[in-house]
Amino acid sequence: MPRPITLFTGQWADLTFDTVCEKAKAFGYDGVEIACWGDHFEVDKALEQDGYVQSRWDILNKHGLKCWAISTHLVGQCVCDDPIDERHKSILPSHIWGDGDPEGVRQRAAEEVKKTARAAAKFGVKVVNGFTGSKIWKVVAMFPPVAPSMIEDGYKDFADRWNPILDVFDEVGVKYALEVHPSEIAYDFWTAGRVLEAIDRRPAFGFNFDPSHLYWQMVDPVGFVYEYADRIYHMHVKESIRTLDGRGGILGSHLFFGDHRRGWDFVSPGRGGVPFERIFRALNDVGYTGPASVEWEDNGMNRDQGAPEALAMCRRLDLTPSGVAFDAAFASNK
Amino acid sequence: MPRPITLFTGQWADLTFDTVCEKAKAFGYDGVEIACWGDHFEVDKALEQDGYVQSRWDILNKHGLKCWAISTHLVGQCVCDDPIDERHKSILPSHIWGDGDPEGVRQRAAEEVKKTARAAAKFGVKVVNGFTGSKIWKVVAMFPPVAPSMIEDGYKDFADRWNPILDVFDEVGVKYALEVHPSEIAYDFWTAGRVLEAIDRRPAFGFNFDPSHLYWQMVDPVGFVYEYADRIYHMHVKESIRTLDGRGGILGSHLFFGDHRRGWDFVSPGRGGVPFERIFRALNDVGYTGPASVEWEDNGMNRDQGAPEALAMCRRLDLTPSGVAFDAAFASNK
Amino acid sequence: MPRPITLFTGQWADLTFDTVCEKAKAFGYDGVEIACWGDHFEVDKALEQDGYVQSRWDILNKHGLKCWAISTHLVGQCVCDDPIDERHKSILPSHIWGDGDPEGVRQRAAEEVKKTARAAAKFGVKVVNGFTGSKIWKVVAMFPPVAPSMIEDGYKDFADRWNPILDVFDEVGVKYALEVHPSEIAYDFWTAGRVLEAIDRRPAFGFNFDPSHLYWQMVDPVGFVYEYADRIYHMHVKESIRTLDGRGGILGSHLFFGDHRRGWDFVSPGRGGVPFERIFRALNDVGYTGPASVEWEDNGMNRDQGAPEALAMCRRLDLTPSGVAFDAAFASNK
Amino acid sequence: MPRPITLFTGQWADLTFDTVCEKAKAFGYDGVEIACWGDHFEVDKALEQDGYVQSRWDILNKHGLKCWAISTHLVGQCVCDDPIDERHKSILPSHIWGDGDPEGVRQRAAEEVKKTARAAAKFGVKVVNGFTGSKIWKVVAMFPPVAPSMIEDGYKDFADRWNPILDVFDEVGVKYALEVHPSEIAYDFWTAGRVLEAIDRRPAFGFNFDPSHLYWQMVDPVGFVYEYADRIYHMHVKESIRTLDGRGGILGSHLFFGDHRRGWDFVSPGRGGVPFERIFRALNDVGYTGPASVEWEDNGMNRDQGAPEALAMCRRLDLTPSGVAFDAAFASNK
Amino acid sequence: MPRPITLFTGQWADLTFDTVCEKAKAFGYDGVEIACWGDHFEVDKALEQDGYVQSRWDILNKHGLKCWAISTHLVGQCVCDDPIDERHKSILPSHIWGDGDPEGVRQRAAEEVKKTARAAAKFGVKVVNGFTGSKIWKVVAMFPPVAPSMIEDGYKDFADRWNPILDVFDEVGVKYALEVHPSEIAYDFWTAGRVLEAIDRRPAFGFNFDPSHLYWQMVDPVGFVYEYADRIYHMHVKESIRTLDGRGGILGSHLFFGDHRRGWDFVSPGRGGVPFERIFRALNDVGYTGPASVEWEDNGMNRDQGAPEALAMCRRLDLTPSGVAFDAAFASNK
Amino acid sequence: MPRPITLFTGQWADLTFDTVCEKAKAFGYDGVEIACWGDHFEVDKALEQDGYVQSRWDILNKHGLKCWAISTHLVGQCVCDDPIDERHKSILPSHIWGDGDPEGVRQRAAEEVKKTARAAAKFGVKVVNGFTGSKIWKVVAMFPPVAPSMIEDGYKDFADRWNPILDVFDEVGVKYALEVHPSEIAYDFWTAGRVLEAIDRRPAFGFNFDPSHLYWQMVDPVGFVYEYADRIYHMHVKESIRTLDGRGGILGSHLFFGDHRRGWDFVSPGRGGVPFERIFRALNDVGYTGPASVEWEDNGMNRDQGAPEALAMCRRLDLTPSGVAFDAAFASNK
Repeated sequence: MPRPITLFTGQWADLTFDTVCEKAKAFGYDGVEIACWGDHFEVDKALEQDGYVQSRWDILNKHGLKCWAISTHLVGQCVCDDPIDERHKSILPSHIWGDGDPEGVRQRAAEEVKKTARAAAKFGVKVVNGFTGSKIWKVVAMFPPVAPSMIEDGYKDFADRWNPILDVFDEVGVKYALEVHPSEIAYDFWTAGRVLEAIDRRPAFGFNFDPSHLYWQMVDPVGFVYEYADRIYHMHVKESIRTLDGRGGILGSHLFFGDHRRGWDFVSPGRGGVPFERIFRALNDVGYTGPASVEWEDNGMNRDQGAPEALAMCRRLDLTPSGVAFDAAFASNK
Repeated sequence: MPRPITLFTGQWADLTFDTVCEKAKAFGYDGVEIACWGDHFEVDKALEQDGYVQSRWDILNKHGLKCWAISTHLVGQCVCDDPIDERHKSILPSHIWGDGDPEGVRQRAAEEVKKTARAAAKFGVKVVNGFTGSKIWKVVAMFPPVAPSMIEDGYKDFADRWNPILDVFDEVGVKYALEVHPSEIAYDFWTAGRVLEAIDRRPAFGFNFDPSHLYWQMVDPVGFVYEYADRIYHMHVKESIRTLDGRGGILGSHLFFGDHRRGWDFVSPGRGGVPFERIFRALNDVGYTGPASVEWEDNGMNRDQGAPEALAMCRRLDLTPSGVAFDAAFASNK
Repeated sequence: MPRPITLFTGQWADLTFDTVCEKAKAFGYDGVEIACWGDHFEVDKALEQDGYVQSRWDILNKHGLKCWAISTHLVGQCVCDDPIDERHKSILPSHIWGDGDPEGVRQRAAEEVKKTARAAAKFGVKVVNGFTGSKIWKVVAMFPPVAPSMIEDGYKDFADRWNPILDVFDEVGVKYALEVHPSEIAYDFWTAGRVLEAIDRRPAFGFNFDPSHLYWQMVDPVGFVYEYADRIYHMHVKESIRTLDGRGGILGSHLFFGDHRRGWDFVSPGRGGVPFERIFRALNDVGYTGPASVEWEDNGMNRDQGAPEALAMCRRLDLTPSGVAFDAAFASNK
Repeated sequence: MPRPITLFTGQWADLTFDTVCEKAKAFGYDGVEIACWGDHFEVDKALEQDGYVQSRWDILNKHGLKCWAISTHLVGQCVCDDPIDERHKSILPSHIWGDGDPEGVRQRAAEEVKKTARAAAKFGVKVVNGFTGSKIWKVVAMFPPVAPSMIEDGYKDFADRWNPILDVFDEVGVKYALEVHPSEIAYDFWTAGRVLEAIDRRPAFGFNFDPSHLYWQMVDPVGFVYEYADRIYHMHVKESIRTLDGRGGILGSHLFFGDHRRGWDFVSPGRGGVPFERIFRALNDVGYTGPASVEWEDNGMNRDQGAPEALAMCRRLDLTPSGVAFDAAFASNK
Repeated sequence: MPRPITLFTGQWADLTFDTVCEKAKAFGYDGVEIACWGDHFEVDKALEQDGYVQSRWDILNKHGLKCWAISTHLVGQCVCDDPIDERHKSILPSHIWGDGDPEGVRQRAAEEVKKTARAAAKFGVKVVNGFTGSKIWKVVAMFPPVAPSMIEDGYKDFADRWNPILDVFDEVGVKYALEVHPSEIAYDFWTAGRVLEAIDRRPAFGFNFDPSHLYWQMVDPVGFVYEYADRIYHMHVKESIRTLDGRGGILGSHLFFGDHRRGWDFVSPGRGGVPFERIFRALNDVGYTGPASVEWEDNGMNRDQGAPEALAMCRRLDLTPSGVAFDAAFASNK
Repeated sequence: MPRPITLFTGQWADLTFDTVCEKAKAFGYDGVEIACWGDHFEVDKALEQDGYVQSRWDILNKHGLKCWAISTHLVGQCVCDDPIDERHKSILPSHIWGDGDPEGVRQRAAEEVKKTARAAAKFGVKVVNGFTGSKIWKVVAMFPPVAPSMIEDGYKDFADRWNPILDVFDEVGVKYALEVHPSEIAYDFWTAGRVLEAIDRRPAFGFNFDPSHLYWQMVDPVGFVYEYADRIYHMHVKESIRTLDGRGGILGSHLFFGDHRRGWDFVSPGRGGVPFERIFRALNDVGYTGPASVEWEDNGMNRDQGAPEALAMCRRLDLTPSGVAFDAAFASNK
């Protein structure tokens, strides 16, 4: 059976959930990964309002779509972040932002992620994708000199804040999948391993594997798949490109996405440098059977053109492995 | 007239010949290159049994397929190999293996290849593809130190064993096309030239050009085409990929195909690194007019998905050269 | 609105204009860029013969094609070239070649380009593409040693000969677009800037951007687009490939196109190394709204196969930029 | 006259100034760039204590060394940084840290830099090197989404805080040379240009060009030299290496320098990837006549071995350009 | 204390031991790694003849040289090899070759290696370097198809033959260091790990790390050092170069060393592609404190020129790591 | 016996011959290659003036220098060039330039080269190095389209003009060595072969192998050595570098040497990209026993610093090949 291909609704939150589903179906997707923002999936209503969860399924069923995961990137980001400032205000609903006191925001965000676990269980999906934030991302440049204890404290802060959340995930039988990403507690190969260690590799916590963030950092996504095979709970098909011409730098120069002077950018899947063919084969090898979820971001292209193109690439790469070694046929003489 | 594209049946020997032909036709192929193993083409029956040869054509005609070559890789391998051991037993029919005495095996294999030449003639094709084996492949590492005379003896052994076979090929007007391949007497650019020299470049012997084996050795397949243009009697469209990540080595680590730790592997045509576009143009340049025969091997992909995809690539690359230089039009003023 | 894709008729001058238009339409093109040679567009008739200009439009209209530019590469080449010799004779109509006296040829060529401006205006297009020739191309190797004053004189000769021509372009409201190309006054990144300076960047003169000539010289075509954004008046979709194998050299060895020994060659768009995707995005970024015009040259391929294939590539790459930054959606919470 | 080579004393602050000078002389250096920390150069004493400035020169003269610049990286860092925290406390003298209130620290740091300008003037050097800190470095990942106004505000904050400081530099005839470096207001090619713009390119402010920080970001240091030629007031010979093996990432993974898992590191000059030869030629081209100052940092090597080795490399690369073009001699016939 | 640099005497066995030592001293080496062939170190005499061991030390002491290891590559090769043929005869003393019956040769070789352990102990060194041979090297091409059980059997044969030998090594407190090398049981990254597993990682068996054999196979020698850090018992400074020009292949074409057509070759240390600087730093990191032993092989250069040049390179690369992190000095304010 | 290293005096023609010799000796050179311009070697005086030839040897002997070749690049250039113009005037003595009529110049240049052969014989050297000029270099861009007959005519013109000259070389037993170089009849790999064919490979004509001109064209100099082994009569140690940064083009942009914007440049030997180590080994392989002659050109460096540095590189690379294969020692057991 082929792998299902889903569309992540996060970049389409300006549209109603019904409209996104209509588009996804028209493009040919098998399902959607639903963002917990906009009107796509509202956690409070899911827990408190009769019929809300069913209303989401009604829309999905109307369009013949399935769903395997919901996503809480924006709220998750606020659990560990330090500082908390106007950037966070702009991505949070007002009841979580409240008066904006940093620690209050973090605690309300933590509670919201717990609720999201319960809502996912009620909705009937097994995975919540998202970010975690980080207390130590801000010292990534390691200058002025950073004491080792400061780094250790960052991982401990993560464990202290997320273990109680993960208890709820265990309780309701759902998993949290961190998208390894700059500005999170884990953002590359080695930090991914370190963060698992911080929570004693408890199974409730794993990764939403997104190769686009690794590629521009020059980390090999294929090696990541084999190393963390048992913690890949979900994946994103998202693409990036490196355009290092001697002027653009790898740090982005404080230029916005889509500005040609940048040293790297996000582009529509299939138009950058991520080795998706080797990635799909590696996911087959390690036995990942979940969906491939297209997260579409490209400032130089129209999303209505890009989303079906990305889907077509996934279909082509979604290989069923040969059941036998190819040279077995040589031995077929009687 | 476009070049015919055929499917090599060797990797489909677990199916009956009729079933393979049905599939090849459904995929859209123009013909097949028939393996002399499984029930696809049985040399004994072809020579001794009335109507056998016609029965093969009946199956081909039923499916609207053509045929330009048959292949005897497995038996050919045993003509020069030393040692002969259990690996050979598993690929030979019992009447050639016999009691397994190495020299007896080699001589029976040599006789079988002669018969194969006669069977090809009777069947009406002009080319037999295959391997040769090698007495000196085992010393390819050149350690313990190898005397130059030992290498020379290897080429002489090849000539001594194959010249009588090639006499039969001359007699019946058929050619033998060695697939240049590790474990054979010729396995790269320089050994290909040396082996032609060993038999005084007699025309009965040439090559089944398969770029996949050259590519992973870092030999340029395009240069091979121009250098040995007059000895390219057949070709394989087979693909390989290099995945050298600092751990996988070029010798394969005694790991089996499909194991991601290997430094190179075979993959479906179009998904690796072989420069097929330049190869097809080079074959046009040197006047090769025979078929492009797809040898499909990829442990990470289903062959029913791969075979039509490979065909599509060949169709796209099968160019008819321009009849005139493009800048001739500039001179068309009266 | 998508960008129009046109076919340059220069490589099809062995066919009548009507036949070329029929083919272009059948391939699916939106229009043609008409060469001023063969019977495609005859400048004298356009200026002197009643109804000639309308006859061209009649043919275009019959096939449902549009036109945004005409091209005078061959005559333009002769304005500055030194020496003038048999090569020029073979590309010029006899009334310009006349007795072949070099200076006479140059002056007649200059007059013809002026007429071409007037013909373009009468025909109703705003751009004439072409070459300029060069008095100093012949000293590109800079040996024997070349005095700086000799180079300066080359640029001055260009300005002296072209300023009067450009006056006519200004008079009739048409622009001249030089195809930056070896053997012209501007042939790479730095010479392009120098030539604009030579004529004080007067707006009548700009470029027909053709990346194939930059690519094999190892100049980044994308950088060219951003640097000379305001002088890109037209563009060619033409492809080249580098095949540097240690023998082929970057200067071409005086070997003709299509000879596999060359270090680079022209090939059908999409089959070489030009980064067309980044180029199309860059052209969007700088606001170029004109046609993409396919100049098809490939000695190893049939042009009837190549022209539609090139068109398909253009359609795929012709992107409509996203109206909003992709992460704007994150901010859509109320 | 050859370029002077100096040793930056910052990494030797565990030794007394006299001891460092003794070593520098023994290694063969021409002079030192003096750090304003440890006992090397104390700004307060320089301004307030009779004879302090002369005491520094006495030590220099005793060892036959010269001096062209002093450096205030640590204090400069605190002028714009946000947040201000324990990392800053550990690098500041207590009278600047005071009670640690962030804005107080910033203002005291600003005053200290003004004093440093006066001390430099009194000491008789024309350049103070250092950092600036940055209010917006912490949002370099641009996620959560950053409003353009927030970035603009960062540059404005820099201008507001540094313009009054630069007024003092102008008053005493000294220049401030920012070391472009991650965690500063300018950290790569584009931000360097942006920061000059923020202060209207006033001449008091330029750069201490250090290629090691650009190299690992994949910015071409040679291009930087040509672009900002008139703002290069000093330079560091410091080396870095990229060791991107598919695991190490370009952001450093929160691993400390010297850890082999990092994707890049600092190493002794000549043992990494910085193109020093092209850099020295470029500095010659643009007319930079100041010292080359070795900033030596390498956790895998002893500094007493590294410092003379770095000096030897500088001497080898310190080329006197040819007075005439080499081919001028061809023309010397009478 | 710096690392000692030794010269391996194996490539100088045409000279007497005394002469080699005289040369090594004159070149400046600290000691030698003694080959157990020629008259350099004779195992039988060491065990049976009074004063033989002392006679070796007398020669060493006369020249002021030290010794940390002896080497038995040639005899070790014969323990597992299959086939055993004329190549082995030419490298073995007659008492081991005997009648040449393969299994007899293998068993006599195994006994000789046990004796070598005892001789090493008597001589007072802790490491014996050498080869192991391999029953499965001959099937490295994996064609004819090789059953997984055949590979497993190869590793088991190794364990069966070497465990009794390693018992003797344990008994006398000496270690065996396999040089990972094509034609041995371990020849690259993955086979090195597999062979340790075959003998349950018993400490008596480790590696003589020689990067030249890994480099041409495209395996990263630095990764090898970190992965097998606790099994690096000795190291060779030997160099190789890749000269892949499209014709030369990575398998060597049965051409002898020094033939320019080969795709790779051995050259004098410092003249090829092995990343020795990163290797020496890695060896420091993992705490390897043994000698760096120059194995000099280069058919294009005189060994008397090469050996001192290789020594000079080692001296330059033999770094003493910095005792403190370089940025510690920043924190030295009071 | 080591290879002699000479200094080519062409770039030192502003100095007297005596002064150049004094410098060469002081640098440590073994001899000089003498330019036939300036006062270094005057052909007329050599033939007509008693004692002139001896006077040259007196100077050489005074400084302990030897000589194997003289060079006539400037006059040789004028034999075939078309056009002949002011550039040629500046490099020719007035008696050859005469009235500047092109054909007259060519014929006088041809006579001068004949005289140079006679002067070389009288002087006692066996090789004259130089250029040839070319009638077809000017059409290297192959646009406007060039008829094949025009190219053929260029090679024929070369043969017609040089065969009579080469008759004189045969008569006096001296050889002419063309420096393969852009602007000459042969300028890369393929044209070198074509030009030998044009004169039926007569032994009087061969090459002064100079890798710097091949390298920037991306032609492998090592392949050139093996292909034209029997025609390498002399060699230059001259260096070039490629600095392709996306702006600089491979054709040089009509920028002068030393301008950083160029895509390639000449630099001091050892500071560019020419693979000199592989070249010296290849020259050993093919049995070239002549001098290595340093032609020093670098606009960014002082020649008095560069010339001894280049010599040091040559000494290091001038290897005496090993007399025996390195693994022969393995077989030395009795």
